Amino acid sequence: MARREPAIRTTKAEVAQAALALFCERGYHAVTIDEIAARAGVTKGAVYYYFSDKEDLAKDLWHELWDRLTSEASAALDPEASTAENLKGAFRSVLDAMSGLGEARFFLRDAWVLPSVEVAGRADQQAAAALLGDLLGDARSRGELANIDTEAAARVLLGAYAEAVLHILTTGKADPTLEVVDRVIDGLFDQVAPGSRFAGTRG
Amino acid sequence: MARREPAIRTTKAEVAQAALALFCERGYHAVTIDEIAARAGVTKGAVYYYFSDKEDLAKDLWHELWDRLTSEASAALDPEASTAENLKGAFRSVLDAMSGLGEARFFLRDAWVLPSVEVAGRADQQAAAALLGDLLGDARSRGELANIDTEAAARVLLGAYAEAVLHILTTGKADPTLEVVDRVIDGLFDQVAPGSRFAGTRG
Repeated sequence: MARREPAIRTTKAEVAQAALALFCERGYHAVTIDEIAARAGVTKGAVYYYFSDKEDLAKDLWHELWDRLTSEASAALDPEASTAENLKGAFRSVLDAMSGLGEARFFLRDAWVLPSVEVAGRADQQAAAALLGDLLGDARSRGELANIDTEAAARVLLGAYAEAVLHILTTGKADPTLEVVDRVIDGLFDQVAPGSRFAGTRG
Repeated sequence: MARREPAIRTTKAEVAQAALALFCERGYHAVTIDEIAARAGVTKGAVYYYFSDKEDLAKDLWHELWDRLTSEASAALDPEASTAENLKGAFRSVLDAMSGLGEARFFLRDAWVLPSVEVAGRADQQAAAALLGDLLGDARSRGELANIDTEAAARVLLGAYAEAVLHILTTGKADPTLEVVDRVIDGLFDQVAPGSRFAGTRG
């Protein structure tokens, strides 16, 4: 509410939040810098003081969301639980951290339409895949997971997660979709059958 | 080779193929209409006769690839095999039908950067999800699949498939990634445990 707070960080964050709200309401492409300035209660010059253009703003929002989602997911990890249970919990916390379909669409679809965001997003996505890959690698070394390629598994899981988030926020069908995600996770973990733990052999 | 073939369809297809080759080699954004015309051996005017702009060309290529992939996937279906085996086979035939990383990147990533392609692509993707959802629905009604939400499962599988294709074509690690995809599919199908077939109950 301290709209005229002189601290630079506060104003910058307010401009970003105003932009995000507008992007979610009406789609990135329809929104102008003038509207963002009006919503944030600052001049157009103030917006350009913090951000070189609308794309720069989108890139900032994207990066901030990734930070938020990865820290929510990390906070959900329970050292007492199995990795499979942790992955299910982390997915639920990421889902809760998305404020709604507008935000998810902006981040998982629309933001990719912007070349510079796509480049930044790819780096963030690679970081998320590396994090998830490490988690799966630890699980494998503890014998919780069969000898599968954890990097490939991380990528495939992220692809499944992204579509699941969009599906839930589009249809509102959270429980049935969470059940599918749980089965996908179980599919990766289930088959540490006798003899296959160290071999990971396939036909 | 019949480069000057007067038939309109042939020339249009040649222009499209020249554009695809260039997009794959150097990325969509770097390629100009002049270069496409030169590669196809036609005038710039000829390119504009068939396509209103570069984006229109990309949209056409995108749609054609979807057609090719869905017909390859359908052709791979074996009425004697289980749905899980068919899904594994269909994924392999889609993978084979992608000529390489350039094409996959263009279709699964770069093409989404173009707003009008994204709209057309979304429709094609929805059609693919509906097709896959029907397949899963049939499997469920035959008792091969537990009582899960087949629409959600189709979405999640497509997200997993897309990332798997990109991962395979980026890293060259086909077998380990195919193993992960197989496990994801098995995860959906595996748990038709006694008693759960008709209930689909979860804790």
